[in-house]
Amino acid sequence: MTTQSHPIDTTAQTADTAARALADTAPAVRAKALVAVADALPAHADELVALGMEETGLAEARLRGELKRTAVQLRLFAETVVDGAYLDVRIDRADPDFALGPRPDVRSGNEPIGPVLNFAAGNFPFAFSVAGGDTAAALAAGNPVIVKAHPGHPRLAARTAALAAAALEGAGLPAGTLQLIEGVDEGVAMLKHPLIKAASFTGSLRGGRFLADIAAARPAPIPFYGELGSVNPVFATPAAIAARGPEFAAGLAASVGGSAGQLCTKPGLVFLPDDHGLDEAIAAAAAIGEHRMLDPRIAANYTERRAAILSAAGVRLIAPGTVRTDEDGQGWVTPTIAAVRLDVFRPHPDALLDECFGPITILVESPAGTDYAELLETLFEGELTVAVHRADGDDVAPLVRAAARRAGRVLFDGWPTGVAVTPAMRHGGPWPATTLGGTSVGTAAIARFVRAVAYQNAPDDALPPALLDANPWNVPQRIAPAGESTTWGDAIG
Amino acid sequence: MTTQSHPIDTTAQTADTAARALADTAPAVRAKALVAVADALPAHADELVALGMEETGLAEARLRGELKRTAVQLRLFAETVVDGAYLDVRIDRADPDFALGPRPDVRSGNEPIGPVLNFAAGNFPFAFSVAGGDTAAALAAGNPVIVKAHPGHPRLAARTAALAAAALEGAGLPAGTLQLIEGVDEGVAMLKHPLIKAASFTGSLRGGRFLADIAAARPAPIPFYGELGSVNPVFATPAAIAARGPEFAAGLAASVGGSAGQLCTKPGLVFLPDDHGLDEAIAAAAAIGEHRMLDPRIAANYTERRAAILSAAGVRLIAPGTVRTDEDGQGWVTPTIAAVRLDVFRPHPDALLDECFGPITILVESPAGTDYAELLETLFEGELTVAVHRADGDDVAPLVRAAARRAGRVLFDGWPTGVAVTPAMRHGGPWPATTLGGTSVGTAAIARFVRAVAYQNAPDDALPPALLDANPWNVPQRIAPAGESTTWGDAIG
Repeated sequence: MTTQSHPIDTTAQTADTAARALADTAPAVRAKALVAVADALPAHADELVALGMEETGLAEARLRGELKRTAVQLRLFAETVVDGAYLDVRIDRADPDFALGPRPDVRSGNEPIGPVLNFAAGNFPFAFSVAGGDTAAALAAGNPVIVKAHPGHPRLAARTAALAAAALEGAGLPAGTLQLIEGVDEGVAMLKHPLIKAASFTGSLRGGRFLADIAAARPAPIPFYGELGSVNPVFATPAAIAARGPEFAAGLAASVGGSAGQLCTKPGLVFLPDDHGLDEAIAAAAAIGEHRMLDPRIAANYTERRAAILSAAGVRLIAPGTVRTDEDGQGWVTPTIAAVRLDVFRPHPDALLDECFGPITILVESPAGTDYAELLETLFEGELTVAVHRADGDDVAPLVRAAARRAGRVLFDGWPTGVAVTPAMRHGGPWPATTLGGTSVGTAAIARFVRAVAYQNAPDDALPPALLDANPWNVPQRIAPAGESTTWGDAIG
Repeated sequence: MTTQSHPIDTTAQTADTAARALADTAPAVRAKALVAVADALPAHADELVALGMEETGLAEARLRGELKRTAVQLRLFAETVVDGAYLDVRIDRADPDFALGPRPDVRSGNEPIGPVLNFAAGNFPFAFSVAGGDTAAALAAGNPVIVKAHPGHPRLAARTAALAAAALEGAGLPAGTLQLIEGVDEGVAMLKHPLIKAASFTGSLRGGRFLADIAAARPAPIPFYGELGSVNPVFATPAAIAARGPEFAAGLAASVGGSAGQLCTKPGLVFLPDDHGLDEAIAAAAAIGEHRMLDPRIAANYTERRAAILSAAGVRLIAPGTVRTDEDGQGWVTPTIAAVRLDVFRPHPDALLDECFGPITILVESPAGTDYAELLETLFEGELTVAVHRADGDDVAPLVRAAARRAGRVLFDGWPTGVAVTPAMRHGGPWPATTLGGTSVGTAAIARFVRAVAYQNAPDDALPPALLDANPWNVPQRIAPAGESTTWGDAIG
């Protein structure tokens, strides 16, 4: 008679075994494996995009673009691995003359954190799902990844996982480098498993908080990197609206309506002058075709929340928008753009402040001289983005400082949707935008999945390659020459 | 009638106000202020060391050395601020030809996280207390610091805070940059205050877990960086003992007995060959004078835990050590070094595995051929350090890999106490050594107190100086040239 392991435990053990082998792989091997995934998925674009359209209702062009973005992301992380700056290698040679007594040779660098559990998002079935940014960052750092599939696209998730796992294994990474699990209970059980060393998540504030609390309450707590959404306020100066009103109206409608507004960065509140005169332009720009929402539950939540917003005191409709349920229970929507006067909104902002996931935004019509900086700091706690629309001559310095205190990205004369995948990008912000800061877009995302280890007086044969004087991986090494430390701070003050 | 603010709230508000002014200070100004503190404290060394001796029982030479170390630490962070690498500045210029469509200009860099609450440690009244490493790192990053004084040295804490705050203010930093609070309830209330954005702690596992859980349960959770101690296992190969037995015995006794063993890095378990033959050498080296423990509570805990260890099955005494309570209730101790055979220890390790804060260590006498790597991974979860004593010809690669998985520092042929203050040093490790990883020694400690902000298409007058093309602070900028991104990953695979 044999003891049957719990499947969650088996999956975790497999990941732990893979972690040991992965930690010893050279960066070039991991990079080639990431590129292999970046090649494999687009090679099956027709099949994958068709599955995504069917399961999520997202448009073909959007999904093809997202798949391309996912491949670019994987390639960007391949370059990040080979570049090696993320290892933060520091070498302090022994110093017999150190001010505090003879100093040993100390070298440190980042190593993989261990098996990572990634809760996939529903609204980006490629870019924030099985082979999306969190997975790419964790793999790049040398960790196996267990993805908890999003229930909104189970077949696409399974097919993506099969293709990606085969590509990784084909490129020489160990079996079990990428595994897929399904189900809320299974995800929670895995989050509690002692072999899991970090977790990532993209989704709702409620779901993220639930999981973050579990991660923090473990006997051995682990970092939980959740991206929990955002209202993404926009602030437009009178001069900006005077200079570029029609362009502003068109950009706003496109940013709110794209992908049926089901984006973490959709602008949810727009502060602009009360004499903007853009009602017609906005209504015209918002008159686009129906878009299906991701699933009936999201459509139901949107319907309810939208009704509450529209029934709040003083809210008037600029673009009424539509909500319709089809014979399969799916929701179909067009953008809703409403407005409220600041003096009505300000005393009771709570009804309108919570994120509403879907194609709706609220203009807050503000009198001349409104202190946007003060408004921003008072109303908002932590946002993924704050957008500032200004014109030459506007002094937006106080507003920008307030925005930097409250958000992870401050953008100018543009719209927060369409997050660029570049090394400098930051997709994160103070709570509740994210749980622990960090970013889930851009190459800094890899920093969430490493931990530093220092080696003191280590012989060469005990050092990781990145810390060797010979530097076989050719990574950046910050070297403090012997003797430097005796003069620390002497040049200052 | 006026409303009286709660004093905790007033302190937090003062810190928040200071945070706004501090965030705008140039690095050179903050660096000079740190150097001013580094100058001010040693200028009062006689007074401060006398206070420290009286309140903590630590020896004069130790406290003078620790004060010097504290000043070196402050100078090191002054250099870290001016150097600016910690800002992680990334600049991705606009790219109209980007693979995913025209790409905006995106720049990011680290900014101060906001007011930091630092729970001071009792065993390092300078280096991990009011003006210690956590405070220096948080100030260097541009944050105001509220220190919760350790009750073990209240007068030294108050005097240090007065001197340091005056030096900071004298160097041009805002009032309230450094504030001191006292009391457990006050510390907990401050940890819950919404204006506090991060916390640090050095102390016990129980105290650290209590506070970490509070930080995680806040309506807006904040990062809590706790350093919760460690057993710091040592593994010595037969060849190492054969080559350097007497040196090993002397080094061990000094590392266990120094500062009455009241160090987070004191070696608590020493795995060595069962035929080491070092009993006499160890007993002789451990025969040093009595040292007072920090306070009666610590002495009582030590007495109780030591008795439990010595009564465990199979434990024999090599250096018996002493414990005595004086007329003031203070405990006085000499080192205790015990031993147990691996075959007795292994089946029931729990009684001996927990950290015992004080001058005691346990040798685990292991037969030839013992698999130290397997032992290490099985017995230990997260350690500040693992020490490996080896000789030429020993294959310690598996042991080193296991050590790197379990500890933040792996050291060779030396002792973990006496943590070098250098840029590459890491003082942290997997739970329970630290709560969230990170390090509280070395310049990477600053990374715990920053958050990144990205600016998209920002005009120059809205950018922080570090992100400007003109680079007025002369900090390292990682610049991705336009066009590069169209070829990501093409050179790989």
